[in-house]
Amino acid sequence: MRPSNRAADALRPVTLERAVARYAEGSCLVSFGNTKVLCTASLEERGPPWLRGSGKGWVTAEYSMLPRATHSRTRREVSSGKPSGRTQEIQRLIGRSLRAVTNLSAIGEKQITVDCDVIQADGGTRTAAITGAWVALHECFAWMHARSMISVDPLRDHVAAVSCGIYKGVPVLDLEYEEDSAADTDANFVLTGKGGIVEVQGTAEMEPFSEAQLLELLGLARGGIERLVALQKEAIA
Amino acid sequence: MRPSNRAADALRPVTLERAVARYAEGSCLVSFGNTKVLCTASLEERGPPWLRGSGKGWVTAEYSMLPRATHSRTRREVSSGKPSGRTQEIQRLIGRSLRAVTNLSAIGEKQITVDCDVIQADGGTRTAAITGAWVALHECFAWMHARSMISVDPLRDHVAAVSCGIYKGVPVLDLEYEEDSAADTDANFVLTGKGGIVEVQGTAEMEPFSEAQLLELLGLARGGIERLVALQKEAIA
Amino acid sequence: MRPSNRAADALRPVTLERAVARYAEGSCLVSFGNTKVLCTASLEERGPPWLRGSGKGWVTAEYSMLPRATHSRTRREVSSGKPSGRTQEIQRLIGRSLRAVTNLSAIGEKQITVDCDVIQADGGTRTAAITGAWVALHECFAWMHARSMISVDPLRDHVAAVSCGIYKGVPVLDLEYEEDSAADTDANFVLTGKGGIVEVQGTAEMEPFSEAQLLELLGLARGGIERLVALQKEAIA
Amino acid sequence: MRPSNRAADALRPVTLERAVARYAEGSCLVSFGNTKVLCTASLEERGPPWLRGSGKGWVTAEYSMLPRATHSRTRREVSSGKPSGRTQEIQRLIGRSLRAVTNLSAIGEKQITVDCDVIQADGGTRTAAITGAWVALHECFAWMHARSMISVDPLRDHVAAVSCGIYKGVPVLDLEYEEDSAADTDANFVLTGKGGIVEVQGTAEMEPFSEAQLLELLGLARGGIERLVALQKEAIA
Amino acid sequence: MRPSNRAADALRPVTLERAVARYAEGSCLVSFGNTKVLCTASLEERGPPWLRGSGKGWVTAEYSMLPRATHSRTRREVSSGKPSGRTQEIQRLIGRSLRAVTNLSAIGEKQITVDCDVIQADGGTRTAAITGAWVALHECFAWMHARSMISVDPLRDHVAAVSCGIYKGVPVLDLEYEEDSAADTDANFVLTGKGGIVEVQGTAEMEPFSEAQLLELLGLARGGIERLVALQKEAIA
Amino acid sequence: MRPSNRAADALRPVTLERAVARYAEGSCLVSFGNTKVLCTASLEERGPPWLRGSGKGWVTAEYSMLPRATHSRTRREVSSGKPSGRTQEIQRLIGRSLRAVTNLSAIGEKQITVDCDVIQADGGTRTAAITGAWVALHECFAWMHARSMISVDPLRDHVAAVSCGIYKGVPVLDLEYEEDSAADTDANFVLTGKGGIVEVQGTAEMEPFSEAQLLELLGLARGGIERLVALQKEAIA
Repeated sequence: MRPSNRAADALRPVTLERAVARYAEGSCLVSFGNTKVLCTASLEERGPPWLRGSGKGWVTAEYSMLPRATHSRTRREVSSGKPSGRTQEIQRLIGRSLRAVTNLSAIGEKQITVDCDVIQADGGTRTAAITGAWVALHECFAWMHARSMISVDPLRDHVAAVSCGIYKGVPVLDLEYEEDSAADTDANFVLTGKGGIVEVQGTAEMEPFSEAQLLELLGLARGGIERLVALQKEAIA
Repeated sequence: MRPSNRAADALRPVTLERAVARYAEGSCLVSFGNTKVLCTASLEERGPPWLRGSGKGWVTAEYSMLPRATHSRTRREVSSGKPSGRTQEIQRLIGRSLRAVTNLSAIGEKQITVDCDVIQADGGTRTAAITGAWVALHECFAWMHARSMISVDPLRDHVAAVSCGIYKGVPVLDLEYEEDSAADTDANFVLTGKGGIVEVQGTAEMEPFSEAQLLELLGLARGGIERLVALQKEAIA
Repeated sequence: MRPSNRAADALRPVTLERAVARYAEGSCLVSFGNTKVLCTASLEERGPPWLRGSGKGWVTAEYSMLPRATHSRTRREVSSGKPSGRTQEIQRLIGRSLRAVTNLSAIGEKQITVDCDVIQADGGTRTAAITGAWVALHECFAWMHARSMISVDPLRDHVAAVSCGIYKGVPVLDLEYEEDSAADTDANFVLTGKGGIVEVQGTAEMEPFSEAQLLELLGLARGGIERLVALQKEAIA
Repeated sequence: MRPSNRAADALRPVTLERAVARYAEGSCLVSFGNTKVLCTASLEERGPPWLRGSGKGWVTAEYSMLPRATHSRTRREVSSGKPSGRTQEIQRLIGRSLRAVTNLSAIGEKQITVDCDVIQADGGTRTAAITGAWVALHECFAWMHARSMISVDPLRDHVAAVSCGIYKGVPVLDLEYEEDSAADTDANFVLTGKGGIVEVQGTAEMEPFSEAQLLELLGLARGGIERLVALQKEAIA
Repeated sequence: MRPSNRAADALRPVTLERAVARYAEGSCLVSFGNTKVLCTASLEERGPPWLRGSGKGWVTAEYSMLPRATHSRTRREVSSGKPSGRTQEIQRLIGRSLRAVTNLSAIGEKQITVDCDVIQADGGTRTAAITGAWVALHECFAWMHARSMISVDPLRDHVAAVSCGIYKGVPVLDLEYEEDSAADTDANFVLTGKGGIVEVQGTAEMEPFSEAQLLELLGLARGGIERLVALQKEAIA
Repeated sequence: MRPSNRAADALRPVTLERAVARYAEGSCLVSFGNTKVLCTASLEERGPPWLRGSGKGWVTAEYSMLPRATHSRTRREVSSGKPSGRTQEIQRLIGRSLRAVTNLSAIGEKQITVDCDVIQADGGTRTAAITGAWVALHECFAWMHARSMISVDPLRDHVAAVSCGIYKGVPVLDLEYEEDSAADTDANFVLTGKGGIVEVQGTAEMEPFSEAQLLELLGLARGGIERLVALQKEAIA
């Protein structure tokens, strides 16, 4: 039995609210239950130096948590002078996931930075961030299209993500914090709208897991992500 | 004529929404027009080392802006490894303002950190932060009182703040960004509920100002802060 | 009764000694009693990047204390890797004060950095620094004028500063360290030679203060600054 | 055809040389073809603060590359003041992999740090590091056992790792640098001696991959890791 | 012919002024010509952690230059976040030199930090700093003795230092900046009052030097240091 | 009697192994007994900014120790965010020593960085590094010559280094760690193949030393360095 009484293959209530930030070219406030992430897409005129002259643009992401997003207060990373290893892992993952469905040649030599700031954290912040970031990025491209800055849509597909895990011996979808901290195995899946795998990261917290378990988790994720993609479609409609 | 058509002594629409953060002991989302600041109060068991053994507690504040709170994206401070001078000035000001109305002996050897994170910035973020931080702090003390951690209310009075300035030669209340960046003189006032001055900071951006002008600005601030204190009272009712 | 037996409106003995640094374009050793600050003005060929092409120059300031300027030794800021919030507040204040009386268009696209290094600290280091920095800056402009680098004097007026406070219930001028650490209210005033206010910063350390008290402190400051401006005139004669 | 003419399921020549560092409690120089990593295990008397009083120990890892391990020189991380995101990801992965097969209760409140320093890099440094780190850790435990510091072997199983990828459309085992930089999909697998999965990380560099491809890569990895575990057994014999 | 017309074996005018810092336990303003260094000795109650329980104290030094001590302005080290390699070399040298003549057991478990801040730099700042630091340290010990904190004098001997070099082919004593930047060989010598060598550092800037030249430079240094020790004796008389 | 039973003027067994790093333009693994340093020379197309347009190149060095090169584990310098003072002293010394025998005009506007990474440390790492770095640099110039990037050999002479010290009252050559940590005086000598002195650094650890002792140490060093230069000649033959 899950703490929330959810079925093993049930997502938490998910909302994707577009156009929530007055100044950003694109934005989305995503919530997976009590996890809330504000995603903003900022268009910047200059791409990274290594693409200069290539005609290609870049999409990158940054991730951070407000200090009291969490059950007890977390120190700001600026006070230790650098982002933690966990933060860097997550922001690299978000950036790779978005680039996997973006045609970088279609945006010109510009950069879009998607900031994912966790307002409240109850597990699954990185997967919620990816799911919301896609909506913010989509809105940014719509903004550019409305100003004739791009002619074709740079997005080739949807991308969304969800976490799964083995909790009390049972594979379950979309772990909240209480489940996450007790799970044996923790896995994050990033899939496209067509069902292709962009990223899979599975970690045994205590006991190693089997190929069969990996496939079960992937099956749960596939179901969840189909629903997330449907919600993305509603959000941008 | 002000960009918003407001009268010289008119505040922007102000809201103070309490209990917006699920995990914090106290919280308040404050908005002054398009400026929005999330204030959370976190109770920490250990006060600062220099108060150990004194029986007194401490109230401190931290301040930050989300990268796309602003019209164009601002780099995260963690990427330069340290808070900017501006950030440090502001968080010191918020902390001093709260401590000016707090009886530190009444809270025991504990620390309360009020985090003020700017979600959207349209001028006056530091004064909005002080005004909302007081509500979050009040809620935190109510939480402690409900758990018998304190017996008397550590708050001796309200504290609230507002900015004023001389815009196109006219003293005006509660500057928004467009006014702020064009103002001749910029002043921030922090007052208590009883009208005592906690902090006054006036800066001539171009031409020096006179004693008479300082007093005019203080008069505007006094009117605005009376209304802010009334809104604080509603918010905690 | 003040520790030094001074009258409430008496400055400490103030000296302003010009041309004390062999290599700097301008310099001044300022002392307010036991507080001693060495101010040097350095002309640099390149202004800040954001003024390139504007034809304007820039005046900025840096502030630091020698480790044993103080009663007990203070750690060097380089050992924590960054200037403290207090240091940044002070050097921003000095820079703003100097720029308030400087015609930046008259100096061309150059930068003058005024370094204020506290040799000995007995309260009021920031206000002494502003008062001495103006003399160093004046000498730097004279140096430039002698080399035909400028044709009109970029200084439009004097600027000087002094601290005031409410000590044992009585408003007093020019606090020394012992008074400063016991004062109820601490205020710094920066005024021009003509008496215009450039900056006012008043902080209640314990009890809020009233408008009447603020005006009393401003009155004391005005008297003190008139004498400081007279001393600046002697120093540059 | 692979650049090295290897079969798709062939490892590069792998060697595991034990006891190569005179002062370390355990060490192993591992090479996978031209990739060479020096792993040293250092026993430290104090575990991390959060385990104090728990009776448990800790195993952690650090990872670095010599500046000229690579085809062109890489700047030392100390010159940017912090380990890169990539370095942090890798050292966290090595630590998790070793802890997955270690009984932390069996080592007492001590810490073992396994340093993995890349002497030469030709792809697959993180997986080579995990494979060699296990040997160094095993030697460290033998050292402790010989001194009666532990009574049961804290290692519950072997752990080894290998990279796989889809190169020119074909799934291949143990990518060298030239293959790695051209691969469509890159996946790292960490398995135990009994075949349990400790970690799987698959990333689509360009095109998303399918479940069938993921299983093919896992199959290749399983074969390679069986051979690596056999080599670990020889090395510690 | 030297720029100053000095003889090859002539020091610049040297002054050692004691008791120049109001708050420090010991102080000395040393000048070698236009080079001026303020040395302050600060007594701190706690020695370094590695001496705790040993009954021994510690003497250490820090070195810094004011930004406009030099012909053109030098950036403050705090702005790059760390002391430069040159600064660290120099402060380690000053500390070693002072400890070479100090009986650390005679001062108890305390630390004395000698801060050497260069007010004006015209070559030879590190050797001037050592020479002045000894006087400040002596005064600090006198202060401690007057308060019965020590019973025997911890100083076993004088220590002083001077630079020498080969300038236009001729070995000369006490190089000023203009000579220093053109010298073939640059050597610093630290000697005790009895003539023992504490430190010798000789560096060929262009051509290697010979044993005979090294001895010539040592001879010049010996003469200079005898005069410096005589001046130290006068200063403390 | 020395711990190793060596004669006072005997080097440890020294080996210089060339071409040990697959990707570097030059490399040498040098060992002095149990001290082992990997030196790699990397050719970089751009010299330092201050030489741009001068037609001259630059040779520089970096130095680091693997964490478990030492008897007990040493923290990585990246974890404190900056190289230690000791590291900076050493890498500046290696760079100066190499430049003393290099004709910088003969290499064009390029930079060669010699990385000296200590694999195992048993005293004398900096002198071993200099001795091995020369071989790596020589190999790099041979590589450049083979590609017609240079026409004359930029090396004007050999350079090698050794440490000496007074151990139990006796001057001895090439101290190992056990001797080094107990020596009264520690001196490093850097000499050219022709016997010119490039650098001499002598430090009294406890008792000051005499001119006669300095000359004895120099004599020992001269003998040792003659043998080191002979070994360099063999290594490059």
